[in-house]
Amino acid sequence: MRGTVMYAAADVRIENVPDPTIQEPTDAVIRVTRACICGSDLWPYKTLQPEDGARVMGHEAIGVVEEIGADVRTLKIGDVVVMPFAFSDGTCIFCDEGLQTECVHGGFFGNPEVPGAQSEAVRIPQADGTLYVLPVGEDDALMPSLLTLSDVMGTGHHAAVVAKVGPGKSVAVVGDGAVGLCGVIAAKRLGAEQIIILGRHPDRVALAREFGATDVVSERGAEAVERVKELTGGYGVHSVLECVGSGDSTLTAVEIARPGGAVGRVGVPQDEKTPGSEPAFYNNVSVSGGPAPVRAYIDELLPDVLEGRIEPGRVFDRTVDLDGVPDGYSAMNDREAIKVMVKP
Amino acid sequence: MRGTVMYAAADVRIENVPDPTIQEPTDAVIRVTRACICGSDLWPYKTLQPEDGARVMGHEAIGVVEEIGADVRTLKIGDVVVMPFAFSDGTCIFCDEGLQTECVHGGFFGNPEVPGAQSEAVRIPQADGTLYVLPVGEDDALMPSLLTLSDVMGTGHHAAVVAKVGPGKSVAVVGDGAVGLCGVIAAKRLGAEQIIILGRHPDRVALAREFGATDVVSERGAEAVERVKELTGGYGVHSVLECVGSGDSTLTAVEIARPGGAVGRVGVPQDEKTPGSEPAFYNNVSVSGGPAPVRAYIDELLPDVLEGRIEPGRVFDRTVDLDGVPDGYSAMNDREAIKVMVKP
Repeated sequence: MRGTVMYAAADVRIENVPDPTIQEPTDAVIRVTRACICGSDLWPYKTLQPEDGARVMGHEAIGVVEEIGADVRTLKIGDVVVMPFAFSDGTCIFCDEGLQTECVHGGFFGNPEVPGAQSEAVRIPQADGTLYVLPVGEDDALMPSLLTLSDVMGTGHHAAVVAKVGPGKSVAVVGDGAVGLCGVIAAKRLGAEQIIILGRHPDRVALAREFGATDVVSERGAEAVERVKELTGGYGVHSVLECVGSGDSTLTAVEIARPGGAVGRVGVPQDEKTPGSEPAFYNNVSVSGGPAPVRAYIDELLPDVLEGRIEPGRVFDRTVDLDGVPDGYSAMNDREAIKVMVKP
Repeated sequence: MRGTVMYAAADVRIENVPDPTIQEPTDAVIRVTRACICGSDLWPYKTLQPEDGARVMGHEAIGVVEEIGADVRTLKIGDVVVMPFAFSDGTCIFCDEGLQTECVHGGFFGNPEVPGAQSEAVRIPQADGTLYVLPVGEDDALMPSLLTLSDVMGTGHHAAVVAKVGPGKSVAVVGDGAVGLCGVIAAKRLGAEQIIILGRHPDRVALAREFGATDVVSERGAEAVERVKELTGGYGVHSVLECVGSGDSTLTAVEIARPGGAVGRVGVPQDEKTPGSEPAFYNNVSVSGGPAPVRAYIDELLPDVLEGRIEPGRVFDRTVDLDGVPDGYSAMNDREAIKVMVKP
């Protein structure tokens, strides 16, 4: 079959790769009907070294079950399913706690060991625990929004949950990428009163406003901190959703939290140490977050998607076929596209 | 009057200093009946530069109200009171939230601006909000335990609260100083099932065991992480109380938390950045904490002290008068004393 192989920074090729097969009795194989390019794919796109190992990319997908292993109990051929970016057995102590990204038999798609979903098909380890069956057909009009349940909507929601967003709270979202935009949706959905988006791309902040952002801060660094404080009576916000992962954005996130506030970080950290130790400590600001257990959140988010109360699929502003994937990476990397959907 | 002045690292002198007076109508002056030397006093004792400014030390005390300003409403001359290490107005939005250490009119004792309590008397700003009246006489037998409500017991409790200690949880306490030992008491009090103390001083870990520690880990660094994992089925603990503040201890704290766990840090951070960004992120471990709002916790902890259910005063293993304070610093710095009580 054909798939997307990244060999090194900025070297993404569409190639013939081995067909996925059932390797364990708990596996399934799905035919990919929708995939996408993630903001986190841009980190290797900027930095991957050839010696890191080539990988079939892609960790977000919707597909149709084509084959199941002998031990798969909850899925049948033809099911339309969401593939979360992490696989998980659904039964371990961490899955029981709703933290599927920490599953003791879990892992991630799109690395040298586990091929990813920017492909015609993909092998799903721990299929019963991993896949979520959707009550719609494979070409349903809601596909873009449903597809975000595989990562960005669940990730924005995770940031909001660990940042303790709730009714009446003030919230800042650092980053206007697809996750940040979904963070705005999540904050609004959880009842936030004030939602400040920190971003500087006119198309993105416009969409953030449509999703519920009440204020836009386009400054960065110390100026951004000052602006957020001006907007919040001098104190900063209750909850910060850190959706970038750089040292600078993380420091800003800590500094715009009000005393006793909470930072939920879902941007993949690019540094060994977390900036802002002293402001976090002296202001009693908590810093939480990590890979989002999006599998756990589908139950809660799916009804809102199906009934049209949230439209996270609007973050997709470009659609490509497999041959268009390399251009899709380049467009996202150059900030010409917010998020690219792939129809293999 | 006589007070304890620190001029530079290891330069602590007992001298005549100005008598405290009412400067604002919200002030009180208390005669200090008990004070102590804090583990956090050892940071300036190790590092203070002469150009940082001399300071009258001490931020933990019990005393008797001697004088009150015109606007003080809840105190009267002769009241026996706890002086928490931070002063606070008791009425601002942060005090309302129980976060008195973030009070908008608050501050700390024992710095160049606000003289401290290792003295015969001390001025208390925001006296109504700051001081807590005790229902006992100034020489009550419970004084050592009551004195810990001014800092170390409330601080250990704060670490436990933000580390989400609860019934049945596994807990690790990093550091066997007075705060760590109080952290053991707090963890036990909140229902923890397993309490692992990381420390290597025989007298301290013995006391930790009496306070409720179930396991002792005397290793450090990677070996300590391995030992804690062995003791917890390979996963690490639910809650970590970081009671040291060094880079190494903070990294260990993050690394011994189980996925989805929580680190509560109350050790004053010695680094600009928090170590362990990646393990914290990939394990979804939260890092919270800061200066403990001990004023808020007295209501909850005082009955347990008065009724003898907890005995945090056992952390004091030496008592000195004012002239003995310089030796007290030296003894704590050399780990010859856990915590020194001062009777001026």
